[in-house]
Amino acid sequence: MNDDGSHDGSNDGSNDGSHDGVIGFVSLIGAGPGNPDNLTLRGAAALARAEVVVYDALLEPSFREYFPAGAEQHFVGKRCGKHSSTQDEINALLVAQAKRGRRVARLKGGDAGIFGRLGEELSALRAAGVPFEVVPGVSALTAGAAAAGFPLTLRGTAREVLIVNGHDMHRPGYDFRPLRDFDGTLVIFMGAAMLSTLARGLLGAGANPAAPLAFVEGVATAGELVAFSTLGEAAQGKVSRKTDKPGIIYVGRVAASDRAASP
Amino acid sequence: MNDDGSHDGSNDGSNDGSHDGVIGFVSLIGAGPGNPDNLTLRGAAALARAEVVVYDALLEPSFREYFPAGAEQHFVGKRCGKHSSTQDEINALLVAQAKRGRRVARLKGGDAGIFGRLGEELSALRAAGVPFEVVPGVSALTAGAAAAGFPLTLRGTAREVLIVNGHDMHRPGYDFRPLRDFDGTLVIFMGAAMLSTLARGLLGAGANPAAPLAFVEGVATAGELVAFSTLGEAAQGKVSRKTDKPGIIYVGRVAASDRAASP
Repeated sequence: MNDDGSHDGSNDGSNDGSHDGVIGFVSLIGAGPGNPDNLTLRGAAALARAEVVVYDALLEPSFREYFPAGAEQHFVGKRCGKHSSTQDEINALLVAQAKRGRRVARLKGGDAGIFGRLGEELSALRAAGVPFEVVPGVSALTAGAAAAGFPLTLRGTAREVLIVNGHDMHRPGYDFRPLRDFDGTLVIFMGAAMLSTLARGLLGAGANPAAPLAFVEGVATAGELVAFSTLGEAAQGKVSRKTDKPGIIYVGRVAASDRAASP
Repeated sequence: MNDDGSHDGSNDGSNDGSHDGVIGFVSLIGAGPGNPDNLTLRGAAALARAEVVVYDALLEPSFREYFPAGAEQHFVGKRCGKHSSTQDEINALLVAQAKRGRRVARLKGGDAGIFGRLGEELSALRAAGVPFEVVPGVSALTAGAAAAGFPLTLRGTAREVLIVNGHDMHRPGYDFRPLRDFDGTLVIFMGAAMLSTLARGLLGAGANPAAPLAFVEGVATAGELVAFSTLGEAAQGKVSRKTDKPGIIYVGRVAASDRAASP
């Protein structure tokens, strides 16, 4: 952390000369899943203006082509067993860079507001008086379904969407019963590594083994994979990840392969 | 319809200026809510290649700057009381244009997979053997929360997101009880015109009147408005729409104004 404690939102203090007395700005950018195709025009413009780019492991390497020439780059994700920054370190980095008067682009995979730790970074910026914007992004929620070729809602078939977290479902004592009676599209983030266990949890609570299930791995990457199955088959271990990329799981009638698949 | 029955997905045939014998292609593009800032690079590229653009009323007029010069334009939304196309007419238009060998960009506000009738258009294209792609977009789901400055999920506060439809909730016999016990972030699409009624329905089922509620109107338009309140105040009619633009409603602890608001 470079913040020497003398800065606050109204007092910027010293920096590199080009921004004397001016506090910087942080763009918290949802960059979409996978490759830069899903970056928005607004996100691309904010990135192009950045003097500092802070990015993590969910972004494909091709994103670097969009980093402005000369921008300082901070990789804060985990890669090949190397240390990844803690959330506190990332918060401190954003605040410190902004307090040096810089325009910071904080790139996050997907949309930062859905299981993306946006709240933690917002709180840190607010507490430090740093001006910011939140640039919404394409979530894996919609990108995964688009890749598989089905809508999340469909008249007469699925009128609600419930987004849950596989890590939470995997904890002892998680109550699967409210999910049993859910009649819309259930979307599980961060459940790829424990898909069969989660499916067994749903079945154990009384869910229908014939419920269609779609699994999309590596959304919007070169290795994107789509698998159509059922909850029962997934519980038997017949659906499993082929890579270590993030995957997203859809359970519900929209995810039936006869409605989906490529043209 | 111009379908003469001679085309199918496997017949590539010759290609010239008139596309004789070549089946076209439909890009179903989630254009994001409001202005073109939320269009993705992939969506913009698909739009730039289009010979025909089919668009609706959810898009701001500034989108037309991104329509390729010379592209045929079909407006299929409702405007100023004029007739809007039925879904069947839109489906038929997409199929007919593709069967004339054209590259069609079907632009939809937000993400087409969330209450956007994507399923109906996909079914029509599949039935007709028309090749297509689904280009995911930024949903009002995430764009509204970004505008208001809060995350949809937050550790220790909101671990699930439930997306529902205000029109469904407004129907007689709708069961609000499953929503009463929902402890995550409840997101109501298409509920702006009946916000107080929906809030009373939730309270009638036992929801907490102190539950934070945020209402975002005209997401990503020049007239974007964000209001922070509570479920109880909304039930009393203290939160209401100021325009006839679409609005999105968030209920849950993340929507508290002390976590949100502009920097």
